[in-house]
Amino acid sequence: MKYCFGIDVGGTTVKLGLFDEAGTVLDKWEIVTRTENGGENILPDIAKAVKEKMAEKNIDAKEMLGAGIGVPGPVDGKGFINKAVNLGWTEKFNVEEKLSGLLDMPVKAGNDANVAALGEMWKGGGAGCENVVMVTLGTGVGGGIIIGGEIVTGAHGAGGEIGHIHVEDKETDSCGCGNKGCLEQYASATGVVRLAKKILAQTSQDSVLRDGEISAKAVFDGVKAKDALAMQVAEQFGKYLGTALANISAIVDPEVFVIGGGVSKAGDVLLDYIKKYYTETAFHGCRETRFELATLGNDAGIYGTAKLIVSVQSH
Amino acid sequence: MKYCFGIDVGGTTVKLGLFDEAGTVLDKWEIVTRTENGGENILPDIAKAVKEKMAEKNIDAKEMLGAGIGVPGPVDGKGFINKAVNLGWTEKFNVEEKLSGLLDMPVKAGNDANVAALGEMWKGGGAGCENVVMVTLGTGVGGGIIIGGEIVTGAHGAGGEIGHIHVEDKETDSCGCGNKGCLEQYASATGVVRLAKKILAQTSQDSVLRDGEISAKAVFDGVKAKDALAMQVAEQFGKYLGTALANISAIVDPEVFVIGGGVSKAGDVLLDYIKKYYTETAFHGCRETRFELATLGNDAGIYGTAKLIVSVQSH
Repeated sequence: MKYCFGIDVGGTTVKLGLFDEAGTVLDKWEIVTRTENGGENILPDIAKAVKEKMAEKNIDAKEMLGAGIGVPGPVDGKGFINKAVNLGWTEKFNVEEKLSGLLDMPVKAGNDANVAALGEMWKGGGAGCENVVMVTLGTGVGGGIIIGGEIVTGAHGAGGEIGHIHVEDKETDSCGCGNKGCLEQYASATGVVRLAKKILAQTSQDSVLRDGEISAKAVFDGVKAKDALAMQVAEQFGKYLGTALANISAIVDPEVFVIGGGVSKAGDVLLDYIKKYYTETAFHGCRETRFELATLGNDAGIYGTAKLIVSVQSH
Repeated sequence: MKYCFGIDVGGTTVKLGLFDEAGTVLDKWEIVTRTENGGENILPDIAKAVKEKMAEKNIDAKEMLGAGIGVPGPVDGKGFINKAVNLGWTEKFNVEEKLSGLLDMPVKAGNDANVAALGEMWKGGGAGCENVVMVTLGTGVGGGIIIGGEIVTGAHGAGGEIGHIHVEDKETDSCGCGNKGCLEQYASATGVVRLAKKILAQTSQDSVLRDGEISAKAVFDGVKAKDALAMQVAEQFGKYLGTALANISAIVDPEVFVIGGGVSKAGDVLLDYIKKYYTETAFHGCRETRFELATLGNDAGIYGTAKLIVSVQSH
């Protein structure tokens, strides 16, 4: 049996996992992401942590397939990252080559949202499938497109930028990307709050949402309690997201959509609202496409990065 | 040098091409598509035509890589076609196996719109690229998504069904697919005519479109003559199509969009209207994606089917 590491670099912590090539996680742990001084310590810290783990577990370099690393920024097919502002990385460099040099083993790099999708395909909500679209509903809306078991990176690293599908012509506020009317403005955690505030401002009707702070969780808790205004918010959310996913089906026609991120903790009720509008607009051939909740949570990234290296080494 | 045949089956004629493996067309010709009796003669007629050509050109079976065939209907990854109403085929069967048995050589099958995209990637508007989205603006709107040099067929054969992207919530007429507000209702030849008729009915303003029959060609000729109403039609066409293509970029982020089909004969002016709205809504990373007109015309299918078999045999 050979081994590999999956490494998911976030702005606060780096998650690491030791896997066997079958995808069983043997150990997982975190280290702090030191973003100061242009993030110059991040890769050396990772290399140190990996080497210590190999020593602790008595794993020889010859038993290693390599390591996969996921970073919050676009990574091209050759391992170059342009920049990752959250990590303090502001200059283009080859993250695969650099970490490979520090570790003396093969390294494959990917964008964090894309590798999370790959992880969910391998061992999560999309297990058993090779054509998977993952949507991560968090602070923003992220995504990953997996076709034939491989991440669709795109010609400019914009493959799977599902949050920036244009869904509303009439929007007057700008998205973080600079455009107006992006899916992220309605289907992210902050987007759901925005929709809720607009609906609450339009009426004096009573609602549980008027008590305490509005959050995506409060909205879907309200839906479960049959709160009329919360249900209106969920309808709008479902319409924007369900229609966008129907359009994704008319383009890449996945076997399954995997829905993850903080907002997805609302569970099946969330899928119900998405599927209602998905079914209305989807092309007939793909009206029955499966929807699953993500199952790996914050571990999707370490699974996906491990899979990156397993896939390469088994080719 | 080895050879292959590209075969593009339409409802009226079957186009055939003899290619060398480098993609040079050595001969091309057509036979009639005999759709009567459930289209039972179509594959035998093709086999006869192929064998006669091999005899005429003195090509031995050992020199053949095989044949690719494109059909107007969804084809799955194993060569099964569910049905192709235009050909009289109403029952599911394996078109690859059947034609391979008749020809005694390897056969690969694909959907006609998808293989046209592959042809344009190989030798047409997308030459030199491996990530290409082709849009065919004809009676309907067809499409093909090529990622890493391979057709994205989709889990239900709906990959590249670009014409059925939902773009308009307020539509009251139904698309041929049964849904309302599909891209095809605005960006096909018939869709452009529909847009023109609506605009003409809303005003009594003078327009060249009031003389003679309205067609997509008449609209874009009107645009070239600076006709105000024709330009309004082109703006609407450009908005629907340009926004849909921007959304495709946020999903698969191709290197190039290739625009083909009858409507594309309008030329660069058509691309100008598409690009105007594409640039407004595209994610910043892919705002500069190239747009090219298709160059292979009706031969895209024979090139693409030839490429199907060249790709397989060279793996």
